[in-house]
Amino acid sequence: MASIATATFADRLAEAVERKRSQLVVGLDPRLDLLPVELRGEAVLGRAEAANAYARFCCGIIDAVAPYVVAVKPQVAFFEALGGDGISALERVCHYGRAAGLLVIADGKRGDIGSTARAYAAAYLEPHDEHEALADALTVNTYLGGDSVEPFLQACRLYGAGIFCLVRTSNAGAGDVQELTLSDGRRVWQHVAALVGEWGADLIGERGLSSVGAVVGATVPRAVAEARKLLPRAVLLLRADVARAFTSGPASALVTASRSVIFAYRGSTEDWRGAAGAEAARLRSDVWSVSGW
Amino acid sequence: MASIATATFADRLAEAVERKRSQLVVGLDPRLDLLPVELRGEAVLGRAEAANAYARFCCGIIDAVAPYVVAVKPQVAFFEALGGDGISALERVCHYGRAAGLLVIADGKRGDIGSTARAYAAAYLEPHDEHEALADALTVNTYLGGDSVEPFLQACRLYGAGIFCLVRTSNAGAGDVQELTLSDGRRVWQHVAALVGEWGADLIGERGLSSVGAVVGATVPRAVAEARKLLPRAVLLLRADVARAFTSGPASALVTASRSVIFAYRGSTEDWRGAAGAEAARLRSDVWSVSGW
Repeated sequence: MASIATATFADRLAEAVERKRSQLVVGLDPRLDLLPVELRGEAVLGRAEAANAYARFCCGIIDAVAPYVVAVKPQVAFFEALGGDGISALERVCHYGRAAGLLVIADGKRGDIGSTARAYAAAYLEPHDEHEALADALTVNTYLGGDSVEPFLQACRLYGAGIFCLVRTSNAGAGDVQELTLSDGRRVWQHVAALVGEWGADLIGERGLSSVGAVVGATVPRAVAEARKLLPRAVLLLRADVARAFTSGPASALVTASRSVIFAYRGSTEDWRGAAGAEAARLRSDVWSVSGW
Repeated sequence: MASIATATFADRLAEAVERKRSQLVVGLDPRLDLLPVELRGEAVLGRAEAANAYARFCCGIIDAVAPYVVAVKPQVAFFEALGGDGISALERVCHYGRAAGLLVIADGKRGDIGSTARAYAAAYLEPHDEHEALADALTVNTYLGGDSVEPFLQACRLYGAGIFCLVRTSNAGAGDVQELTLSDGRRVWQHVAALVGEWGADLIGERGLSSVGAVVGATVPRAVAEARKLLPRAVLLLRADVARAFTSGPASALVTASRSVIFAYRGSTEDWRGAAGAEAARLRSDVWSVSGW
């Protein structure tokens, strides 16, 4: 298995996408008020119990969706809201996901400078003592510029980690900063996309994709096509399936779905695990067929 | 003490600055390799022991500097690098700081959208069960725009919390995004500053300052003067003392010092607590006299 350990994140991802014929990533966004009733009762007793319920829920979802997805994407904030107990639960979930053969993308949107950025890289992307890294990849905010990203790039080089840089998000407020027009006519996010391409240029694996990817809000289809053009080597992390995102190969885009999968039981007569598995299976086929591979 | 609970963050800060005649904030950036030898021996045994050493170190620093500072600013990343144990240590440190009568500014540079942003606000700025909020204020990254900031503003309104938005940082890479020139001739960071002013407009307390502050890298003195002009009501969080930052009142800027205080023992013959206290006392006087109040 030595080759796995030294393979780039992008190569590991591409291998998994082709083997499983899936570009689907399930977001693990546990929320107390949406947990199945069998877990909710325990969860209201206190933070430690809620954290335990989150871990049990997410591990159950991992079991259910594992055949259909290439990665899970735990949303750090929901665990962080439960303090130290929550982060311990996140650790359990990440280890469980990796043990299930899935890639783990920690959705933390971290970004800071100098030794602080190094600490975030260590927290998420680097092995410690005898333990493997918490995650395979981390989402990163680049408002602080290139030197703030360097410690994460270092983890990509040394440990085969990956990052997904925020480029153009899909929320209403994205226009406030990302869509501002620069003096050269480009948008801020287009400039950020170009930077992301530069940062990832020396991290391109054997399959032609870089371990430095980009988060692009696919509710803006024009932005996806432009991002694809600006970042031909990047893996795009999308929130909906857009055919033209996949033109750089089957693993050149990933589609995330969170609540529609993990809380699928709420609109179903099935058990929560079964409902999540069925919805993941359906989405995986949809996305694969849209991707054209 | 009912008035304390409902006072705005900015009013609580202004009261503390004037009472203590200090604008100094000590950053709590614990690092294994820089810990005093009496704590380092324990810390190398494992993560739980390292987290315990971080907590003991930071609580010792709080005891030493409390008379001279208005706030402590724990850097979340260093705790996060120790996983769940680290975050439990952060909780101990934050509670200890507040019990010592200090304001606590969690330096997390968080930013996300929708329910995720709400989870970060809950994690840092909102009380839960019978527990007070972890921190009085949080540093926030605004690349995702206004709706990503709204949950934090809500915590400011409901719970008297504060935020410090990243505007212009002092690192070399800050130019990559923040210094880009917009089509109207302004820099990206100047536009962000204007947004921060808008977001904070309805959170101005009785002392005339807003609970929505700004992080400005004071290694760029021009930027500090411009930020002061763009944000007359904001509390500026600086990394060095710049006289013209204080023109909106004694509490209109805070100066942070981290390693120079907490690791002052390394260039001293004093005990680590004594060295930190002496350095904090010295800096507090320097800053107060520069501020001109």
